[in-house]
Amino acid sequence: MKIAIMGFGTVGTGVEEILYKKRNSLLKRGFDINIDKILIKNINKKRNPLNKKLTFTDDFDEILNSDVDTVIDVTSSLEETYERIVKLMSAGKNIVTANKAVVSKYFEELNELSIKKNVFFSYEASVAGAIPTIHPIMEEVFINDIFEISGILNGTSNYILSKMEIEGLTYDEVLKEAQELGYAEADPTADVYGFDTMRKIRILSSIVYNSKINEDDIFTFGIANIKISDFDFAKALGYSIRLLGKSKLKEGKINISVIPTFVKDDFFAKSFESTNAIEILGENFKKYELKGPGAGKLETADAIIRDLLRILAKREIKTFYDSANNYVVENNLEKNYYVRCEKLSKELKSLISSEKIIGEEHHIIAKKVNLNKLIDVIDDFDKIFIAEIEEEI
Amino acid sequence: MKIAIMGFGTVGTGVEEILYKKRNSLLKRGFDINIDKILIKNINKKRNPLNKKLTFTDDFDEILNSDVDTVIDVTSSLEETYERIVKLMSAGKNIVTANKAVVSKYFEELNELSIKKNVFFSYEASVAGAIPTIHPIMEEVFINDIFEISGILNGTSNYILSKMEIEGLTYDEVLKEAQELGYAEADPTADVYGFDTMRKIRILSSIVYNSKINEDDIFTFGIANIKISDFDFAKALGYSIRLLGKSKLKEGKINISVIPTFVKDDFFAKSFESTNAIEILGENFKKYELKGPGAGKLETADAIIRDLLRILAKREIKTFYDSANNYVVENNLEKNYYVRCEKLSKELKSLISSEKIIGEEHHIIAKKVNLNKLIDVIDDFDKIFIAEIEEEI
Repeated sequence: MKIAIMGFGTVGTGVEEILYKKRNSLLKRGFDINIDKILIKNINKKRNPLNKKLTFTDDFDEILNSDVDTVIDVTSSLEETYERIVKLMSAGKNIVTANKAVVSKYFEELNELSIKKNVFFSYEASVAGAIPTIHPIMEEVFINDIFEISGILNGTSNYILSKMEIEGLTYDEVLKEAQELGYAEADPTADVYGFDTMRKIRILSSIVYNSKINEDDIFTFGIANIKISDFDFAKALGYSIRLLGKSKLKEGKINISVIPTFVKDDFFAKSFESTNAIEILGENFKKYELKGPGAGKLETADAIIRDLLRILAKREIKTFYDSANNYVVENNLEKNYYVRCEKLSKELKSLISSEKIIGEEHHIIAKKVNLNKLIDVIDDFDKIFIAEIEEEI
Repeated sequence: MKIAIMGFGTVGTGVEEILYKKRNSLLKRGFDINIDKILIKNINKKRNPLNKKLTFTDDFDEILNSDVDTVIDVTSSLEETYERIVKLMSAGKNIVTANKAVVSKYFEELNELSIKKNVFFSYEASVAGAIPTIHPIMEEVFINDIFEISGILNGTSNYILSKMEIEGLTYDEVLKEAQELGYAEADPTADVYGFDTMRKIRILSSIVYNSKINEDDIFTFGIANIKISDFDFAKALGYSIRLLGKSKLKEGKINISVIPTFVKDDFFAKSFESTNAIEILGENFKKYELKGPGAGKLETADAIIRDLLRILAKREIKTFYDSANNYVVENNLEKNYYVRCEKLSKELKSLISSEKIIGEEHHIIAKKVNLNKLIDVIDDFDKIFIAEIEEEI
């Protein structure tokens, strides 16, 4: 069983490490997996794989034209990787990817291509690391109507939020510390503005609703504007604040958003540091919950190799999405929201249920409205902070 | 695809309900599943399946001699079902079972038989209902060293404990209420004395350690002796009490027990009513946690049908256990324990770290000892209550 790997960063080295260390266990179970080639950008950079005989290349065509059946993608680029995955699938190669940006943006297209080319397209590692999330919900879709899925899906923002909450530090202080410790990227945009969470809730929702969801249709508001005063306000009401990706199918409409949320429920409120936490609600069970590390070298590699073994043993689920459910994406459910802003528009004023003014800033609890209506009355998203308020159960 | 079902109680009707309601969804994905026959005890009892054309029989041989490839077992008897499963497997039929008593008692034998007869033997439904537990850890075993697994695995005892805790009712009051509401069986022995939890931790541990674990070697102490004073004592120290099944592999020894536990960690402490909650610790991830309903008609049926689809699509994992790891079962790790008793033996006295006497009863925190040592100094398990005290992290 020869495979190739594209990328040899943190996760790539994790994949190599597990395959190397577990070689005997895998052989015993019939998996004689050999890494044929690893594609890297800089061929001159010193690499330290455990298997010293590994072959590296910076020429994608060597992977494309090789006889490997399956390619593991652990790159982080978007368009380049997308194009390469298309070429690889078109050449009949199965893909295992951890690249959530690619999976989210090109979900329908890549799944259709996998059907057309009769190859496997697996991406368990794109959401929530080693926590078994995607594969189990794929199995559920055949026999269950899952109607709601929500979660803390981005470790970096959760790290920042929980540190701010517990240590009373400012957003900038925690971000800087997180960057120094390697928990946050030098460019944290995708994490703190919610785009990473958006991609993950898009992927999960597309699976469970079998309906096309455009990234652009997902309202996405991150944590970059949060202040300690927001935590103080939330705390006074008994809440924590967590960044949630959430989607709910009701009466043919998909409510989907990424938004900081005032949470009381322990499951989310007591998720600290870079933990991911996911709730899945369906017809056949009230709710089940998953929690654990959402990223990390071995965590993500573990999910990748589970996909790989399923493909090699022909145990993987074939793509079955056809987006046959033409659900409308529309945030029509009414919720309470928190808004903190300096300037109050007339329209926003009309939505106030209660208000507290601290210094220059208005801390508002808005009346129950749907998210679209709230968005309409916000003038400048750069200068405000908003949060959904979790409903009391 | 013709299947048979043994048993048509709550879970059996749930299986029929899902297969009936999801028929179109299943057909669309290539699963044309027909229930050939359902084995029941009392053929004269009126049944109300959704599919009115179903055939019932009270003759096991009709199932055994039928041409169905796969039989779903939702019976609750132990020896009779075991014998029937052996006959069915020997006749080349795959088994999907929810019967944890059979799976636990005959784990090695039935898995070996499944290898010998080249049939699938699947039992996701035997632990934690619809929560994806068993299948994901089977996948982990190939590539990860899981070294600890523990959980609230019995809904009935958790219902009793959390009701006692929140409403301040006695054990007998809550048990009676639970029986009236159908949450507890008329004979609750297996639940409240911990045998059900023991079976589940035995199954999970056998999978992850690939080592034989005899039921008799698992120290099992349930909640039947618990009093409100135990909760009061725990609460004063900041703890809740939950019944945990737990196992930990350390230095070639498996520490495994079922024991009430003083828990502070929110994951267990905030698990209420009949919730199940499972923690899995391994080399490739620090820990992941699963929580949800551990039983119920559709919940258990959902897990059964996931197994069934995997088998029908030949996506199921073939049995790979060979008990090659000859780990010793020995509770050698030292812990703090709580003991409440009327009579103090000299040996128990020597283990006291702190003590509180209320009325006739001693409430003791014992020094750190291993469980075997503690068991040695207890005279009469019928008259005491013991709990392990969760370590501070």
